[in-house]
Amino acid sequence: MIKPRTMPGVMELLPREQIALQRMLDVIRRNYERFGFLPVETPAIELSEVLLTKTGGETERQVYFVQSTGALDKAGEGVPELALRFDLTVPLARYVAEHEHDLAFPFRRYQIQRVYRGERAQRGRFREFYQADIDVIGKDGLSIRFDAELPAVIHAIFTELAIGPFTIQLNNRKLMRGFLAGLGIADAQQQALVLREVDKLDKRGAEAVRVTLTGDAFGLAGEVVDRLLEFVRIRSHGHDDALAKLAALGDGDETFTAGVAELREVLAMVRALGVPESAYAINLSIARGLDYYTGTVFETTLNEHPQIGSICSGGRYENLASNYTKSKLPGVGISIGVTRLFWQLREAGLIDQADSSVQVLVGLLDEARLHDNLQIARELRAAGINAEVQLDARKLKAQMQYADRAGIRFVALVGDDEAARAVVAIKDMRRGAQFEVARGELASALRVEIEQSRAMRSGDPA
Amino acid sequence: MIKPRTMPGVMELLPREQIALQRMLDVIRRNYERFGFLPVETPAIELSEVLLTKTGGETERQVYFVQSTGALDKAGEGVPELALRFDLTVPLARYVAEHEHDLAFPFRRYQIQRVYRGERAQRGRFREFYQADIDVIGKDGLSIRFDAELPAVIHAIFTELAIGPFTIQLNNRKLMRGFLAGLGIADAQQQALVLREVDKLDKRGAEAVRVTLTGDAFGLAGEVVDRLLEFVRIRSHGHDDALAKLAALGDGDETFTAGVAELREVLAMVRALGVPESAYAINLSIARGLDYYTGTVFETTLNEHPQIGSICSGGRYENLASNYTKSKLPGVGISIGVTRLFWQLREAGLIDQADSSVQVLVGLLDEARLHDNLQIARELRAAGINAEVQLDARKLKAQMQYADRAGIRFVALVGDDEAARAVVAIKDMRRGAQFEVARGELASALRVEIEQSRAMRSGDPA
Repeated sequence: MIKPRTMPGVMELLPREQIALQRMLDVIRRNYERFGFLPVETPAIELSEVLLTKTGGETERQVYFVQSTGALDKAGEGVPELALRFDLTVPLARYVAEHEHDLAFPFRRYQIQRVYRGERAQRGRFREFYQADIDVIGKDGLSIRFDAELPAVIHAIFTELAIGPFTIQLNNRKLMRGFLAGLGIADAQQQALVLREVDKLDKRGAEAVRVTLTGDAFGLAGEVVDRLLEFVRIRSHGHDDALAKLAALGDGDETFTAGVAELREVLAMVRALGVPESAYAINLSIARGLDYYTGTVFETTLNEHPQIGSICSGGRYENLASNYTKSKLPGVGISIGVTRLFWQLREAGLIDQADSSVQVLVGLLDEARLHDNLQIARELRAAGINAEVQLDARKLKAQMQYADRAGIRFVALVGDDEAARAVVAIKDMRRGAQFEVARGELASALRVEIEQSRAMRSGDPA
Repeated sequence: MIKPRTMPGVMELLPREQIALQRMLDVIRRNYERFGFLPVETPAIELSEVLLTKTGGETERQVYFVQSTGALDKAGEGVPELALRFDLTVPLARYVAEHEHDLAFPFRRYQIQRVYRGERAQRGRFREFYQADIDVIGKDGLSIRFDAELPAVIHAIFTELAIGPFTIQLNNRKLMRGFLAGLGIADAQQQALVLREVDKLDKRGAEAVRVTLTGDAFGLAGEVVDRLLEFVRIRSHGHDDALAKLAALGDGDETFTAGVAELREVLAMVRALGVPESAYAINLSIARGLDYYTGTVFETTLNEHPQIGSICSGGRYENLASNYTKSKLPGVGISIGVTRLFWQLREAGLIDQADSSVQVLVGLLDEARLHDNLQIARELRAAGINAEVQLDARKLKAQMQYADRAGIRFVALVGDDEAARAVVAIKDMRRGAQFEVARGELASALRVEIEQSRAMRSGDPA
């Protein structure tokens, strides 16, 4: 007898929790499709040679390699041929380069799949988890307008998820690079090192970062560091404030000016797309993955749960697939780490106990009524209602308890009395109410109830 | 520069094909939910010790093992700790045993995930593929009625997929075992060996199977083999014919009698669930996975494409999780190998070119109209329509070509003339028609068009 268990670092859910996760994934997918993104799925297993084009990084140390039994016998002969994807970006680069001539550019893709990382097992860290990404990939060029569409997608998703007010934080790497150049920090590598320290502001606090930057390793003048820290503290409150704060930045070099102009255009389009100004802000401290992003960068935070950190991040990059193709493929994208987000929301008490995906249980009062009940279920299903039939004889109380624990909202019951009167008794488990409907109107009556509660749910304020 | 490519034996799709696959997966999931099955997902990576409880089988030779970089260094030290699931049944057994005390029985779960097998690369064989399974797991016992519900699920799915007429083939292993006992083949192991030969009837032909069974290895009398071959040739045409053919089988031992009774009950319930009698039949040659199934067995075939083989199979088993728990957990389930099915249907020309998931392209006639167009898209999306906005300036002809190739049905256009008259010009790419709608009625008018074509599609005869 073997103890049934999963490896550490995975999130396996009971059905009711899985339904809640599934609803989150469905909302994300639906909104990605709403904004015109196309589905792509790639295999979890990739060729190591293709997946691991950069060597020696943190990522490679976390890669899971894959070997069939035959390949195991030849173990020790270098890096195994196969590996599991550790993100959705490298597979996207491979996909776009491989299918370049069959794709229309700008190519708008969404991808919602699991990725795998050999992390040390630790609370809230996962070795297998969902990512939900969208990217727009251009060929040779890609208008800044595509950057501006992404905050609208983020806004639509987190409004529908109804997990409380959130702020989409906008910045532009050009702005930061230009500002650093203006401070005399012109070397790209030094800029990157400085920004890495700035990125630690939230964690370490301003004073610690100041000590590091004025210390021997960086040797920056105190005044320079002060101006930098003042710059990255800039946040806006409302659309006009964002524009005013950009205007107050004054002039800079060409890069700086381009960054300001891009951020302005993004702000204008975000507003035109109907994102309320309470939902976005400029935040000049946002840097994101230092070597990768080159223009717009995004983070999204829950106003009432800052400790959760960014729940949706991304930005603009220069060239997606330089390892696989000579074509220049700039892009912009965002990613939601769904498994981690779900886990954090649950920890924060923001995930409601989901109703079951089963909407009606057709209870069994009398064995002789089984075939009639099957007919009832058939009608419900034809009307688009998810229905389970009580197939085995069980006490009514046990049936009701089952529906209650499973989160099934309605129990439909027909006994001899109801059959004689051609009605169905309905127990509404949520309201604790009971009512009767004519047998011929059962499906349409329940449809109305279900549609009403769905409309109420999606009408929740964000 | 590295050549971008996937490993052999995976099916990676372009977006329009992916949309078609996604629709198939959505139909399957929707119907599984319609019949009251609950979602479960398990990690792709399982502990080898838990996954590989049986040793030396065909399956184990196909297992992919997983190793992090750290574990690779210790290669050669026995079987790696982690492995990828090769089906959804072993993970289900582990899941049910692990969460036994948190689940309600009978436990009805669906699971649609990818599985991994180190197959030799070969046309139509996949190393990574989708399975879509449902199972009902009982505790201590499980009514035969649950077996009967599954053909109704199969019927609903393949009717909605509209891939032509199909037949759900029903049999019961008890019937076969009882019949073999009546022929003097009473030993369970010998029965299994004989059935394995019978399973080859379609491939090898009756004469070859007859030669094997009367040969030295089996040593069965010619007359016995004849009766057996006659028995497994029995097929029904229509409900009454199925009952008549069961009645004509006469008597047998206790097992035989139980098998006939179970098959009768399944037939009665399948009819009560509204499955038309043209869609199911008894077929006494169906055996399925010899050691696993113990009662009802199913296969499903496309009437006009028998070469595809079974597209949905399953059956009843005695005990799901004996490796993990002392509880007796009988079950019944079916599985659809979605990737292989999709590939085969495409090969047979049965997959239509799918429309894009994008329903409307908001074209750009004039840069000055961009913000208005964003507002149009916003209204469409709020009405539940998937809309892409043409963000970069491009010739109208190029925009139309893009919509056409991508399978986007509608292009909405507003120029100065339309703006002045407060209308939107709509090009219906499918019909090659053009019409105008009032600006204020755009979303509702397109909703009507989209709903109509959806209703027409789902009204297709099966």
